[in-house]
Amino acid sequence: MSQVGTLYIVSAPSGAGKSSLINAFLAEKRDWQAQVSISHTTRAPRAGEVDGQHYHFVSTETFKKLIAENAFFEWAEVFGNYYGTSRIAIEEALTKGIDVLLDIDWQGARQVRKMLPEAKGIFILPPSRKELEARLNTRGQDSKEIITKRMEQAQSEMSHYDEYDYLIINDNFKCATEELSAIVKAQRNKQAKQTLKHQTTIKELLAQ
Amino acid sequence: MSQVGTLYIVSAPSGAGKSSLINAFLAEKRDWQAQVSISHTTRAPRAGEVDGQHYHFVSTETFKKLIAENAFFEWAEVFGNYYGTSRIAIEEALTKGIDVLLDIDWQGARQVRKMLPEAKGIFILPPSRKELEARLNTRGQDSKEIITKRMEQAQSEMSHYDEYDYLIINDNFKCATEELSAIVKAQRNKQAKQTLKHQTTIKELLAQ
Repeated sequence: MSQVGTLYIVSAPSGAGKSSLINAFLAEKRDWQAQVSISHTTRAPRAGEVDGQHYHFVSTETFKKLIAENAFFEWAEVFGNYYGTSRIAIEEALTKGIDVLLDIDWQGARQVRKMLPEAKGIFILPPSRKELEARLNTRGQDSKEIITKRMEQAQSEMSHYDEYDYLIINDNFKCATEELSAIVKAQRNKQAKQTLKHQTTIKELLAQ
Repeated sequence: MSQVGTLYIVSAPSGAGKSSLINAFLAEKRDWQAQVSISHTTRAPRAGEVDGQHYHFVSTETFKKLIAENAFFEWAEVFGNYYGTSRIAIEEALTKGIDVLLDIDWQGARQVRKMLPEAKGIFILPPSRKELEARLNTRGQDSKEIITKRMEQAQSEMSHYDEYDYLIINDNFKCATEELSAIVKAQRNKQAKQTLKHQTTIKELLAQ
């Protein structure tokens, strides 16, 4: 018996509830493994962030070495810090039959899709502009300028929704979580995946 | 708001539990409509069979008229009786956003796929040869010859499992039903379908 996991690229604008959805999905009971991919970064850990759980915190020297070794699916420099997705760690998990969720933006998604076209893209949208604005006003007292800027960033990300295979509208959180689960579950029933997993059964059923 | 349903071609050998699975799936609560396609036939109703529920029972004359009108997705003559799948009824349901399950064999499946390539195929397999033989021995007292013949028919059908998009192994009935549900549910989150359904929301979110 053998299994191959699926890589899911999950993107969303800030305020769509992506992290909550992913966490709710991971907390569900299932008879197979699913995990998020943990990125590498050179930025300093923030309060409460744990190495190996929120990020793999590495030095710039180590990061550049990993780039040279082609260890990343995609990487980027943002405000002087490096962020990257370890290709090797993801491929190891997939080979073990583990489904991996990759939480990245549309630019990272494009890079990953180029290297792993069988990755499935899932885009999460908020239910309305009003709801998004409310969610972007995180402290309830942000200035109009700050909210406008966040909305522009959100719209820039959202404009790429049609580059993804699946679309979830996060209106009712429970429904949205069920939709994410169904997408991952259905993928495991794809004929090629099932043929690999149940090859002994199929061989026995078809033997003359 | 507009929706388009999906046509699912569901095939399986006798003894795989296809009808029970489809019925369990249809009995589930959901916030959209799903139904099985009801075939036309010229054979006489058997005891308990209801016109319009199990089959549309029609005369040979009517059936031939429907063939001439190109009303069928696929039709076949089996032991002197005609059987056919109404293209018009299915297309009407799909246009209303209703998912339609079509219970046909691999030959019918090929014909439907030619006319509607976006139809999704689901094949159901029993968990083992032993279990299949037990299920094919319907009365518990069938002769070895009869069971052997049924097994040959089942194997002929099963040999086409790889022409389908999804594969369900019906070992645990509850799990198999959940898998069928997830396949149908996930399909509704496909980006193109969601874009059509939520076009107003998306337009509002992206408006400058």
